[in-house]
Amino acid sequence: MNGIPVEKGPELDVAVSSRVRLARNFADIPFSAKMTPKHQAALVKRMQSIISEYSNYGKLMFADMTSMHPVDRVSLMERHLISPELAESKGNSGAFINENENVSIMVNEEDHIRIQAIFSGILLEKAYRVCDEIDSIIAEKADYAFDNKYGYLTSCPTNIGSGMRASVMLHLPALVMSGFMKSILESCTKLGVAVRGIYGENSEAVGDMFQVSNQITLGRKDDETIAAIDAICKQIIDREKALRYQLYKQNIYIFEDRIFRSYGLLGNARVLSTQECFKLLSDVRLGVSMGIIKDINILALNEMLVLSQPASLQKIAGKQLNQEERDVKRAELIRMKIQKLENN
Amino acid sequence: MNGIPVEKGPELDVAVSSRVRLARNFADIPFSAKMTPKHQAALVKRMQSIISEYSNYGKLMFADMTSMHPVDRVSLMERHLISPELAESKGNSGAFINENENVSIMVNEEDHIRIQAIFSGILLEKAYRVCDEIDSIIAEKADYAFDNKYGYLTSCPTNIGSGMRASVMLHLPALVMSGFMKSILESCTKLGVAVRGIYGENSEAVGDMFQVSNQITLGRKDDETIAAIDAICKQIIDREKALRYQLYKQNIYIFEDRIFRSYGLLGNARVLSTQECFKLLSDVRLGVSMGIIKDINILALNEMLVLSQPASLQKIAGKQLNQEERDVKRAELIRMKIQKLENN
Repeated sequence: MNGIPVEKGPELDVAVSSRVRLARNFADIPFSAKMTPKHQAALVKRMQSIISEYSNYGKLMFADMTSMHPVDRVSLMERHLISPELAESKGNSGAFINENENVSIMVNEEDHIRIQAIFSGILLEKAYRVCDEIDSIIAEKADYAFDNKYGYLTSCPTNIGSGMRASVMLHLPALVMSGFMKSILESCTKLGVAVRGIYGENSEAVGDMFQVSNQITLGRKDDETIAAIDAICKQIIDREKALRYQLYKQNIYIFEDRIFRSYGLLGNARVLSTQECFKLLSDVRLGVSMGIIKDINILALNEMLVLSQPASLQKIAGKQLNQEERDVKRAELIRMKIQKLENN
Repeated sequence: MNGIPVEKGPELDVAVSSRVRLARNFADIPFSAKMTPKHQAALVKRMQSIISEYSNYGKLMFADMTSMHPVDRVSLMERHLISPELAESKGNSGAFINENENVSIMVNEEDHIRIQAIFSGILLEKAYRVCDEIDSIIAEKADYAFDNKYGYLTSCPTNIGSGMRASVMLHLPALVMSGFMKSILESCTKLGVAVRGIYGENSEAVGDMFQVSNQITLGRKDDETIAAIDAICKQIIDREKALRYQLYKQNIYIFEDRIFRSYGLLGNARVLSTQECFKLLSDVRLGVSMGIIKDINILALNEMLVLSQPASLQKIAGKQLNQEERDVKRAELIRMKIQKLENN
């Protein structure tokens, strides 16, 4: 899946993807801050033996950070398969990833393991069920660090309890255009829900992409948290959708002009910065989701969003590229993708 | 021809069109400031009888300003077939225009008649020969106001002598980009040659279109003037061409980026002001003339330049349009033209 979903999930016109991750540590191994290289190696070995026979979501292959080129690491990060911390990790660490790239288990990140599932659209429950199943498989083979009062113990106190983070990536161009994002950020914070821009700064997220996730892990049942995030996201989605048509009706020509200009630039530019690329992709995504642009499908746009990031570009080019070279390669890649879609 | 040349003239990648006009007055009719409606009517009648049998460049049909809708008048002006003054004329006036729209004879403008020929590319001599031939035909049938010392007498002293204005429309984006236009304007002025922006202000001409023409009509032979303007234009053309490739080589990606972005916007925008449209057309014209854009030919761009002007747009729409409506119609028209060219 890799943030490049291959099937359309529900509410995909606003909800790009849903992700759940569980942070877990084992009772018989010191927590990461106190781990020796030996402990790390033993943990990788343990996970390999537990995971090797598990293939409910396809075989999970180990991506070993120790031997991986930095560009490949960052590319995994850009595809949301590993965290930025793991990509920069110096120790013996890695991630088990399935072929569809919608399940990954990081090993030796901040916690011993982090189990993650990601799906297109708003599908938190499904993502949770996958994580929960893997969690049970592992729990059968080894004891987690668990406290009867607090729940799962984690390296960072913010994760103690459920160890769960449920997050949805939302595309909210109309809320940004109308200036409503600020009030949404405020109300969500009051409800213990974090909303942050995925690319760029908080309230002016590049590409109008936001991640909505739970801040609280302590004293809440998993299904309550999932239901709460799901409900808040659906409210935001409804508001975004209503606003889109309101803005559209206010001045159809101006609205379509913005969308088609971005489309024209994406398909023709020879130099594209990440920032501009995300901005243009956002407009085009809006146009596609409203049926204004018909040649392009929304999954292809998600793919472009991922592939236009620095490491992914360098992987495609097969070599290191400086910023100027990346801007040219990005423009070329996006242009080719759009031409291909138009010709189909 | 109408500023919409149908055949490619020499140096068309820089020289859009060449135009010569002769201002003439008849000895037996008062000059325009003293003319009565009767005189005007008699002059139109005289010209009709002289012109009716002349068809060396196709039949010259009379476009009668008296009965013509203002939009149609302005449209003729946008196609460079009549002057802005004639388009706004209140009296009995008009212009004889051939089917190819490269020959026109205005009647009852500032002077009794103004004979004009316009060709694609740099072809001043050819344009002059056409005007001269028509001039001789008319001179056989009626006496011009002519002074042995001064030459042809005209309403405005600036035209006395030859009564001739030779002008070339040049597209000079590289000279504008590099900031060299100012020095060219200055040197030309010293040589008695006027260089002015055709759309917009002098030194920042919208669409990088400039008209180079003689300022002096007194004491110069026609062929000297034609040769001088021709030589100056060819110098400017050479400099523009050299600069284009110099700028291109400085940074191919940046150069192509500018051109293709403009192309993408022209083919996709839903709202286009005249000013932006001219700017984008200028970039695309530059790209086409350098072989960077291959789907479009330069004559089609000249056509777009003319058709995207307010009155021509309203003629196409078949109704009056306010500015917002024109900006939408302009975008639509240009988009359709580009799509058609791409499909061919």
